[in-house]
Amino acid sequence: MSGAGFDRVALIGLGLIGSSLSHVMRREGLAGHIAGTAHSQGTRDKAVALGLVDSIHPSAAEAVEDADLVVLCVPVGANAEVAAQIGPHLKAGAIVTDVGSVKGAPLRDIAPHIPPGVHLVPGHPVAGTENSGPESGFAELFENRWCILTPAGGTDEAAVARLAAFWRACGSNVEIMDAVHHDHVLAITSHIPHLIAYNIVGTAAHLGEVTQSEVIKYSAGGFRDFTRIAASDPVMWRDVFLHNKEAVLEMLGRFTEDLTALQRAIRWGDGKMLFDLFSHTREIRRGIIEAGQEVDAPDFGRRVTKEPAGGGEA
Amino acid sequence: MSGAGFDRVALIGLGLIGSSLSHVMRREGLAGHIAGTAHSQGTRDKAVALGLVDSIHPSAAEAVEDADLVVLCVPVGANAEVAAQIGPHLKAGAIVTDVGSVKGAPLRDIAPHIPPGVHLVPGHPVAGTENSGPESGFAELFENRWCILTPAGGTDEAAVARLAAFWRACGSNVEIMDAVHHDHVLAITSHIPHLIAYNIVGTAAHLGEVTQSEVIKYSAGGFRDFTRIAASDPVMWRDVFLHNKEAVLEMLGRFTEDLTALQRAIRWGDGKMLFDLFSHTREIRRGIIEAGQEVDAPDFGRRVTKEPAGGGEA
Repeated sequence: MSGAGFDRVALIGLGLIGSSLSHVMRREGLAGHIAGTAHSQGTRDKAVALGLVDSIHPSAAEAVEDADLVVLCVPVGANAEVAAQIGPHLKAGAIVTDVGSVKGAPLRDIAPHIPPGVHLVPGHPVAGTENSGPESGFAELFENRWCILTPAGGTDEAAVARLAAFWRACGSNVEIMDAVHHDHVLAITSHIPHLIAYNIVGTAAHLGEVTQSEVIKYSAGGFRDFTRIAASDPVMWRDVFLHNKEAVLEMLGRFTEDLTALQRAIRWGDGKMLFDLFSHTREIRRGIIEAGQEVDAPDFGRRVTKEPAGGGEA
Repeated sequence: MSGAGFDRVALIGLGLIGSSLSHVMRREGLAGHIAGTAHSQGTRDKAVALGLVDSIHPSAAEAVEDADLVVLCVPVGANAEVAAQIGPHLKAGAIVTDVGSVKGAPLRDIAPHIPPGVHLVPGHPVAGTENSGPESGFAELFENRWCILTPAGGTDEAAVARLAAFWRACGSNVEIMDAVHHDHVLAITSHIPHLIAYNIVGTAAHLGEVTQSEVIKYSAGGFRDFTRIAASDPVMWRDVFLHNKEAVLEMLGRFTEDLTALQRAIRWGDGKMLFDLFSHTREIRRGIIEAGQEVDAPDFGRRVTKEPAGGGEA
């Protein structure tokens, strides 16, 4: 087992993140034993069939017995209930973390159930795909992505360092951040993008004068880019919005203000305002590509080629 | 030369679409001679260096002399001026088309300048990438994408059929549509997506409490998907919004209404409404993938792999 690993890791939830963690822990030798559980029997069966776990358990309480690292990989709305179940069964000295996209509210939900001597270090790997379920995981998901840890003041520093080393061994860069600030940053970089993607796909689905079949046929004009994140897990995203309400509403207010200004510029024919904004936004993409957070292939590498080539669709 | 081709084709404008047309016409043998022009000397020089044209001309008026097919590949705001320049120089029997993303207003701008005996058949290949300029073109851009033709009533049917055959030879599927309907369809499938992508990137760039560097670092949470189309050509998109004002404002009104309803659901904690919308939107993406308008690779094929493999980033 690698030095950054743990003797026994419990994965509570075996969807995209849980299953990807299993794959990367196996590849890097980060867990002596992987114990797992999932809400549904179907997921538990698949996890066994896929070899994601060394032991499967019918409940979170049983899965965490004797675990050195417990990772909650459930929708953030389920955190409180899971924490209440596992609290009495946690081993002294264990580290409990999660992978949720919201950190303020879940910290408040989980913390009261964590007994003294157990270290709560909330975490958020900023990585994902539009797919969900135990089959969707892969070991490279966290590679070169950021994992943000948001320990409360007074958290044991050795526990934080140990979890950071674990995530680095999974391929991530690690940042420590205040939970409230995290929720503001993610509201604009993740939550609002998902919300408006879901929204435009919903709007497009319910137009009278444009049929759904036309929306699908002509989606290459730009619409299709939004559908990827609008295909993300509905329960996970419902919970994100319900648990990061304030930051989401605040950022949404700004987005709408700016959109109203653009609407006004279109109505009044203010081409200069449009041109100035449209010129400025190119720089941000360049920054994202330079930071290794995006591929620079034109059209997301969708380019069709006559001869099969890397990245081309058939 | 292929049966779907023309003896002499004039490309007015040599950006992404003009240069891609040159590449595919060369590959498929669709033009006996390609005459070209572009607004700037720099673009004209590059077009010659890249071999995009057989002859380069300092003005559109000179480029269209003796051409059988004239393709306006300029921002839609430039259509009227270009049409006025070329009108007196068009050959009897020639077909004039364009590639703009708006069809109602440009038709009104171009039509008065087209002499009797010349056939105006406006067109719109629904294809593109975020790149622009003469170096950005490639022959496969139109492959399996839709090209919409919007001839006015009374247009010569043989000319429409000939242009349709040309686009099919370029790899496109062809649809004939009323110009007003086209502008409604594209408002939702292309113009509004670009507008909100530009808008959110602008909003994110001007937050006080979240820095631009944080937006870039954590963009993998969803934000980066929007930056691709927000990196599109600023002049082209300014002109689209100014020329499709009514349909864009109408669709934007619906988008904002729907977003306000979502905002209200978040404020009041209406998880059911969020879940129902988020579940429904997955179907549309499936439809787009089944229609061959999108790749089904998770995460747009950005998946990082330890070993080099097709579609993976380094």
